[in-house]
Amino acid sequence: MPSSLDFLTEALRRLPGVGPKSAQRMAFHLLQHDREGASMLSRALYQAVDNVHHCALCNTFAETAVCDTCLDERRDKTLLCVVETPADQLMIEQTLTYKGLYFVLMGRLSPLDGVGPKDIHLDKLVGRAADGVVSEVVLATNFTNEGEATAHYISEMLKARGLKVSRLARGVPVGGELEYVDAGTIARAMLDRRST
Amino acid sequence: MPSSLDFLTEALRRLPGVGPKSAQRMAFHLLQHDREGASMLSRALYQAVDNVHHCALCNTFAETAVCDTCLDERRDKTLLCVVETPADQLMIEQTLTYKGLYFVLMGRLSPLDGVGPKDIHLDKLVGRAADGVVSEVVLATNFTNEGEATAHYISEMLKARGLKVSRLARGVPVGGELEYVDAGTIARAMLDRRST
Repeated sequence: MPSSLDFLTEALRRLPGVGPKSAQRMAFHLLQHDREGASMLSRALYQAVDNVHHCALCNTFAETAVCDTCLDERRDKTLLCVVETPADQLMIEQTLTYKGLYFVLMGRLSPLDGVGPKDIHLDKLVGRAADGVVSEVVLATNFTNEGEATAHYISEMLKARGLKVSRLARGVPVGGELEYVDAGTIARAMLDRRST
Repeated sequence: MPSSLDFLTEALRRLPGVGPKSAQRMAFHLLQHDREGASMLSRALYQAVDNVHHCALCNTFAETAVCDTCLDERRDKTLLCVVETPADQLMIEQTLTYKGLYFVLMGRLSPLDGVGPKDIHLDKLVGRAADGVVSEVVLATNFTNEGEATAHYISEMLKARGLKVSRLARGVPVGGELEYVDAGTIARAMLDRRST
């Protein structure tokens, strides 16, 4: 095989979820059927590495020092929602139920993978949450073991500094049938039941 | 989302088998955990598009006008094996049973997808096979419907020009148990049975 093709196959394997067979298939496809796409992807990668950094306030990906969301004057500056990834933030934005600001951890605590408090920028979060304007921190990490542990850790840390901390409600999903919902979820929904 | 990130996600979708969710996950992964990999992939794509062309003789990917295999003096120039892709060629090379030359179609006939004789370089194949040195063309396209149709088409075309054409044998795979082999394969193995 030509060395440029070997190099390309090797480089494609750096993508998550791409093994040797997929990488080869991708390389062949691009060179045979979509050279324009290959050039476009090359430019996109170069530009993104060059331009995309982290927002000084919320830590999400941004091309400017502070991201558009953090600069938005219409946002409620007293609320700070903590999420694991920019994708999670997008999901919350799509619900149109939250008008506060965000802090994006860019990860979650995961001791088994060697991800500790330093790796998810908790120092930056503390500085952000203790700015004197934020009055409530809403923890919206995932409801996985790691997400829950992360929420617990952050909660303890922020409450020790006198901040009000809340967590997204757990319960039966909208449209959920009890017969098919797991017992843990129903147990939590029972404990967190609310008067109507 | 920053526009460079949007552009990168869009560009990653040009890869075969990558949908919007995977593309976003890949973009986040590269920017968060593997910027070096992103830069490497950018360079690899650029180099491959720039350097990789098709071998003038066998049509496979090559960085030189004629590929290393075609230039190899130890190869049997009287045998020409026709395969669909460079990956198929690699598989045959790994068997160490074939010492002739190759022609790589870079595809297969597939009328439903709009792939006709022109798209798989049959003019180039005819010119190559009729060089006066090649005495037998071995058809090693896949044993799928499309591969079989391609083999049939090429066979008729080359036989009309007086060339000897053969096809890889079909039969029970090595290690195959009759109970678990499909009837079509057994039928073919019965028809093609050979004396021992």
